[in-house]
Amino acid sequence: MEQETRLTESQPVPHDHAATPGTLRPGGRTAKVRRAVLDATQDALADTGFHALNMDRIAASAGVGKTTVYRRWGSPVGLVTDLLHDMAEQSLPAADTGGLTGDLRANAELVRDTLTDPRMGAVFRAVIAAAACDEECARALAAFYRTRLAEWAPVVTRAAARGEIPEGTDPVELLRAVSAPLYYRFTITHEELTGAVTERAVTAALAAARDGAFLRE
Amino acid sequence: MEQETRLTESQPVPHDHAATPGTLRPGGRTAKVRRAVLDATQDALADTGFHALNMDRIAASAGVGKTTVYRRWGSPVGLVTDLLHDMAEQSLPAADTGGLTGDLRANAELVRDTLTDPRMGAVFRAVIAAAACDEECARALAAFYRTRLAEWAPVVTRAAARGEIPEGTDPVELLRAVSAPLYYRFTITHEELTGAVTERAVTAALAAARDGAFLRE
Repeated sequence: MEQETRLTESQPVPHDHAATPGTLRPGGRTAKVRRAVLDATQDALADTGFHALNMDRIAASAGVGKTTVYRRWGSPVGLVTDLLHDMAEQSLPAADTGGLTGDLRANAELVRDTLTDPRMGAVFRAVIAAAACDEECARALAAFYRTRLAEWAPVVTRAAARGEIPEGTDPVELLRAVSAPLYYRFTITHEELTGAVTERAVTAALAAARDGAFLRE
Repeated sequence: MEQETRLTESQPVPHDHAATPGTLRPGGRTAKVRRAVLDATQDALADTGFHALNMDRIAASAGVGKTTVYRRWGSPVGLVTDLLHDMAEQSLPAADTGGLTGDLRANAELVRDTLTDPRMGAVFRAVIAAAACDEECARALAAFYRTRLAEWAPVVTRAAARGEIPEGTDPVELLRAVSAPLYYRFTITHEELTGAVTERAVTAALAAARDGAFLRE
């Protein structure tokens, strides 16, 4: 997830985002402006959170005209939702360690590295808070995780094919079971995400999966 | 959890909260004022969320003088943290169905009922957002869940004594494993909390517990 936020213009913009403001002519000036504005948005989220997002300040720190920012993104919500689209577009490919435990551990550690990273942790706190306050942000956050989970789903189907877990295990349910305890601590109990927490999340999800707890209904 | 928020003055204020503003002389005028102000705070959180909390409006709808509210609670953060103390004070006793599955199901359904209740769901979204933006709110939210988990811990120790799960299972780890998937959907993916989601959270946590995934380190 760290590199989901790595800044790159080389990446083509998926068709379903073709209509997203600022994504026309990828690689061109529009893409450069979008990159600068989304970087500035991410900085602002990390520094002061969602409710302090200020279009004028973001335009200034992005070195882009205010009118451009207002015309293309409209509002702080527009900036956050486009940032989440962008983070989803740059989502990392899933691990393939050859075994389910290793793959799930890689996923859990990616989540942990992101949430414990001072900058990215602050960004995720901010977008989660934004999602709690705004329906549009909530939909964009949900879409971001749908993209991530879809990328990691093959990890589970491969493991089922190898006989590590029952055939018919729902990949999304298993992957969510690994992430849930980490996000629960991050958003609800605000406890430290230690290596032991990550390891236990993997062990518990695996035990439940082997027991058939995540079989498709 | 619904009744954690049931309004009552009969309940004595725990010693450790004796210093909390507005908790002196429980049952007396101070307690009545606190009750009215915390009810108004909860209404405001449900209606407009944390960032729109307004001390003057809360004083007005509570029928309490502004100066009293400013003097006792100081800020919207003070109101939210005291509300969370109050919700923890009124926490429900744990279920005792005679079996771990039934007890964990009762716990999961209590969480689900609370988060899917239009008013309480909005209150929890608001306090979770507040915790994402403010350290003091984060500590109060964490304390609220520590109180809840401590009340439900005997459910797990009884089950271990009955041999339903391994001796040495960490009650808090198991109880968190039941709640985590529900809160993950509530705060992160904003998916519906169906009965199937609740049931799966219980089944998965139980399977992991039986497998020893929650043994104390």
